Amino acid sequence: MKLLRYGPVGNEKPGCLDAQGKVRDLSRKVSDITAESLSPEQLKTLQAIDVSSLPLIEHPGRIGTPYSGMGKFICVGLNYSDHAAETGAEVPKEPILFNKWSRPTGPNDAVVIPQGSVKTDWEVELGVVIGSKARYVSLADALKHVAGYCVVNDVSEREYQIERGGTWDKGKGCDTFGPIGPWLVTADEIADPQDLAMWLDVNGKRFQNGSTKTMIFDVAYLIHYISQFTTLYPGDLISTGTPPGVGLGQKPPLYLKAGDVMRLGIEGLGEQEQKVHAWDAALLD
Amino acid sequence: MKLLRYGPVGNEKPGCLDAQGKVRDLSRKVSDITAESLSPEQLKTLQAIDVSSLPLIEHPGRIGTPYSGMGKFICVGLNYSDHAAETGAEVPKEPILFNKWSRPTGPNDAVVIPQGSVKTDWEVELGVVIGSKARYVSLADALKHVAGYCVVNDVSEREYQIERGGTWDKGKGCDTFGPIGPWLVTADEIADPQDLAMWLDVNGKRFQNGSTKTMIFDVAYLIHYISQFTTLYPGDLISTGTPPGVGLGQKPPLYLKAGDVMRLGIEGLGEQEQKVHAWDAALLD
Repeated sequence: MKLLRYGPVGNEKPGCLDAQGKVRDLSRKVSDITAESLSPEQLKTLQAIDVSSLPLIEHPGRIGTPYSGMGKFICVGLNYSDHAAETGAEVPKEPILFNKWSRPTGPNDAVVIPQGSVKTDWEVELGVVIGSKARYVSLADALKHVAGYCVVNDVSEREYQIERGGTWDKGKGCDTFGPIGPWLVTADEIADPQDLAMWLDVNGKRFQNGSTKTMIFDVAYLIHYISQFTTLYPGDLISTGTPPGVGLGQKPPLYLKAGDVMRLGIEGLGEQEQKVHAWDAALLD
Repeated sequence: MKLLRYGPVGNEKPGCLDAQGKVRDLSRKVSDITAESLSPEQLKTLQAIDVSSLPLIEHPGRIGTPYSGMGKFICVGLNYSDHAAETGAEVPKEPILFNKWSRPTGPNDAVVIPQGSVKTDWEVELGVVIGSKARYVSLADALKHVAGYCVVNDVSEREYQIERGGTWDKGKGCDTFGPIGPWLVTADEIADPQDLAMWLDVNGKRFQNGSTKTMIFDVAYLIHYISQFTTLYPGDLISTGTPPGVGLGQKPPLYLKAGDVMRLGIEGLGEQEQKVHAWDAALLD
């Protein structure tokens, strides 16, 4: 099932995609798609719905985040060996974890460059959405805790992340730096999360062209690993790292500027498109 | 005003402390103390209440977190020059920021050592609770965004934080590693947040004995600074770093073990007491 939310910010309605790729209205079945909706029991109820019987929404307008009430937004750094190489970093021995403070935004919402920033960069990533509590879970059980998957653009400010001292969190949590969606695709639809093509274009030029095949630490391992350090709850999202081709890795490095358009996608999970804007408070909440 | 919540986990009632230090029931006035309650308008309404007219609660039992719906839990590293020295780190040129994934717990709730952990440590810290949205705020306006202050024990696992690679977040977000409270003391009661004595004992021995006077980056600067990287919203909490005397700084280092008792407090903000437990899933949610 491909769950989504459509409508203006803060007033999204629950929906899903039908077999023809059209939006259907779920609001007579559930008032919203929330972190709680992602439990195995509630997902089963949603999945039992005959989607073709739901009202067709011809013009859904804006697509929002695919669920509300996101919990933790945990990211994994340098999790593709080629990407580690392009940034000049060694392949990590253990997953590198950091946090994204950004409130998640819709897949096509504006990306706003922070005031004075000159190193805003892109990262297409596979997002893993947790559906049930995961604490010290075994590798074998790890994928049982996945409600579904989504596309994430882990937008990053490299000066804040790398040059401003301390941990990476500073360069990852700016406003609008967390587009997710368009859909939360339930885990049963993804036969193998380690065999998904992924790509990102800026202004029509392909920069990232990878596959989840080349992850260093796979999705199951990441859930197992993170669950040793902190408990994962329904609605938590793990963004699992990016393949090569980010702006920092270009020679010379290339960063986003106002007017640029990012398009990105992952096989089976849909596409995002964000226009990049100069700093403008009116574009924010 | 000293706001608090009392009762069993998940069923806390709102309360406040009266002039005699007794708990009064606020539940006829508000259903809970939430992030939204911390806005300047709602705090004004709460502060207008005649506390002495509220029902006295002789036996409040457990004290919970002083508000529900915490947003970001942002921590500042090495923010006391003496503490930086004891850990062998240089005094940072800019604030070091990291994130705490722990769900906050009550001030006297159990602290549980993670499975296999041998380097669980303590850190008394001044917590700053945000009451209104702060985005690119000036130094002069920064303190206007503070709803109040509370004690935080930034419990830390040093192996996970320092030796396990990547950022510090791994060693800061374990379950039970975020006791806050007992009270949220509204900002009007704290004449100078940079002149508060703070201390922490383990098993009756004083290990930390400091003052917010010796912060490198003061509260106003931290709010100003953080608001350049991510927007602060009502209910976000900034834990502002710890003075010297942590376990890592002892010669040789000394870490928590099951049965230890931490007592900690900050002038005007009350005290916490946590018993340390070996790993026991039954003590967690």
